[in-house]
Amino acid sequence: MTEEELKQLLNRIPQADGAAVREACKRQAMLAKPPGSLGSLEEIAVRLAGITGSVCSRIGHPHIMVFAADHGVTEEGVSSAPQSVTLQQCLNMGRHKTGMSALAGYFHDEVTVVDVGIAADGPWPGIVDRKIRKGSRNLYREPALTREEVLAAIEAGIETTQACIQAGADAVGVGEMGIGNTTPSSAVLAALLSETAEAVTGCGGGLTADAFSKKRKVIAEALERHQPDRNDVVDVLSKVGGPELAAMTGAYLACALHRVPAVVDGFISIVTALCAVRLCPQVRDVLFLSHVSEERGYLLAQKELGLAACLQLHMRLGEGSGCPLMFRVLEAACAVMCDMATFDEGSINDDYLKPIREEGLF
Amino acid sequence: MTEEELKQLLNRIPQADGAAVREACKRQAMLAKPPGSLGSLEEIAVRLAGITGSVCSRIGHPHIMVFAADHGVTEEGVSSAPQSVTLQQCLNMGRHKTGMSALAGYFHDEVTVVDVGIAADGPWPGIVDRKIRKGSRNLYREPALTREEVLAAIEAGIETTQACIQAGADAVGVGEMGIGNTTPSSAVLAALLSETAEAVTGCGGGLTADAFSKKRKVIAEALERHQPDRNDVVDVLSKVGGPELAAMTGAYLACALHRVPAVVDGFISIVTALCAVRLCPQVRDVLFLSHVSEERGYLLAQKELGLAACLQLHMRLGEGSGCPLMFRVLEAACAVMCDMATFDEGSINDDYLKPIREEGLF
Repeated sequence: MTEEELKQLLNRIPQADGAAVREACKRQAMLAKPPGSLGSLEEIAVRLAGITGSVCSRIGHPHIMVFAADHGVTEEGVSSAPQSVTLQQCLNMGRHKTGMSALAGYFHDEVTVVDVGIAADGPWPGIVDRKIRKGSRNLYREPALTREEVLAAIEAGIETTQACIQAGADAVGVGEMGIGNTTPSSAVLAALLSETAEAVTGCGGGLTADAFSKKRKVIAEALERHQPDRNDVVDVLSKVGGPELAAMTGAYLACALHRVPAVVDGFISIVTALCAVRLCPQVRDVLFLSHVSEERGYLLAQKELGLAACLQLHMRLGEGSGCPLMFRVLEAACAVMCDMATFDEGSINDDYLKPIREEGLF
Repeated sequence: MTEEELKQLLNRIPQADGAAVREACKRQAMLAKPPGSLGSLEEIAVRLAGITGSVCSRIGHPHIMVFAADHGVTEEGVSSAPQSVTLQQCLNMGRHKTGMSALAGYFHDEVTVVDVGIAADGPWPGIVDRKIRKGSRNLYREPALTREEVLAAIEAGIETTQACIQAGADAVGVGEMGIGNTTPSSAVLAALLSETAEAVTGCGGGLTADAFSKKRKVIAEALERHQPDRNDVVDVLSKVGGPELAAMTGAYLACALHRVPAVVDGFISIVTALCAVRLCPQVRDVLFLSHVSEERGYLLAQKELGLAACLQLHMRLGEGSGCPLMFRVLEAACAVMCDMATFDEGSINDDYLKPIREEGLF
């Protein structure tokens, strides 16, 4: 897609439905419980009304989109696993054998794996082929992607997510697979927040002390060298990002455009959610944070978005592994809104309860 | 049950299965993910192995036990809702219309409601009748229960939970319904921890500032008057507790005795879990905290137990409403343990992956 086409798409992203939000708040106040006593479940149900336009939403077909790519920067020794694991794990996902896909399989959530930059020649069975290039360039030495490549990856994210929404997905989890991708994610976050490499960089899947300090140095020097423009998300993603980061940004845009709740997984997922919000502030309305990632920069991104995660599981796997449990939280919020009795419905019309009806419930 | 029968039962509660725990840790280390990257899900799966004795457990029939009673102390104006709501909500539970039961209904979790002290003449359809007395005495003026009544309520909790385990429940959530019951729960917690009323008392379902300061005064003076013995849980429960608190304590004992995981809901649920642990330290091994309750004393009880809750939902409803989502977390932990590939199984036997097999995964 061109810069102009992206701009036009951003302009078409709608606001939350204020009338539905007001109706939803009214219904929450009528439900037979002390006001506010179901906390986040009430808030989620109200936000879902703003997204779908219906007071009583249901989540029946949640779908996890996994965007996969490799990263030239792994040449610098910033990752604990070899690059080839990206492809291997993408193939394992189709067999419900990775962490995320074991969970998705258990809960019957759909999974789509999209190759936007695996460093090997596909296509492979069970993996959607939207390859932009075979791995990003080494961002330590040169910009990871061109602007055109970033736009193509955003477009791939939009189109594949759109296809899955058109096929019936009513909630989308945004995950990734890409050995080395906490390095570009940390760099992107540092650029967007004008933070130091030190503040945003964590250990990813697990690193030795030496590899960790190298990772920080690589990020700090790449930021220094390329001077990404924090007010231009495409510039940031091209200089220090990666193909799946751009595609994930596009996935969030598609959710916001089509009014579908988007579940944020861990660190890479929240950094790209922030990219999407910077492109279009209304994207925030469709975001639901699943779990507090153990990766260092997560809390900075969470604070910037002003949203709270519902699960505290000390996870740092990625893949979209936080999404299946968060889908259950969204479903729970819907059950509260749709299935609980209101004060009126809750009264039981028998003589032994007459005093209650006179006193009023709560 | 007699004091002696309780003592004999406590002596029969087993230790966690150390061999199964060691096997489970070994299998976690073999799963195709960076070690520790699934955080609490790994830890839960290992703890489940210690409970069930099997490395690969499954949760297929979760069951919420709700113990209901009224409290004489509501005479003092310590609650926002009239006492008759206890019965009304118990009847609504059978119709899947309360907060907890809407969630349990959505996820197909079983619910059993047990009357151990509703202040009205039953029995009622859908409510198991194990009434100890019609409401506790007003603990502000006299001990809430006799020791015999506490022992009878503990026995009711043990027997009803046992029946549900024998009928196939493989995880038990422990909930309650009892208008006014954050007052005895706060008093019990203060007694067990030698804390002040101020430190443990919160707003329950919602209170005016006046009612809140009255509640604190009632708790402080009741503790002063009755001097419950912190080393004698039955004494604490009789002087400042209540029938459902004692029954919930019994429910946890039954779970530990029969090696079934017990899910702790909110404030009242965690206080009674602590009562059970004080009676028998091995009970701790079967406890899983669901959500961080908003009620003030929750964090003190959590710290004392040395366990962490998985959900952060700002809930304060009670009833067992945190259990359905926590059952999903337990199921997720089982899916990770049972369904993920090990490093060996995860390798894909094709030529383009040969380099991985040579390098080793991660």
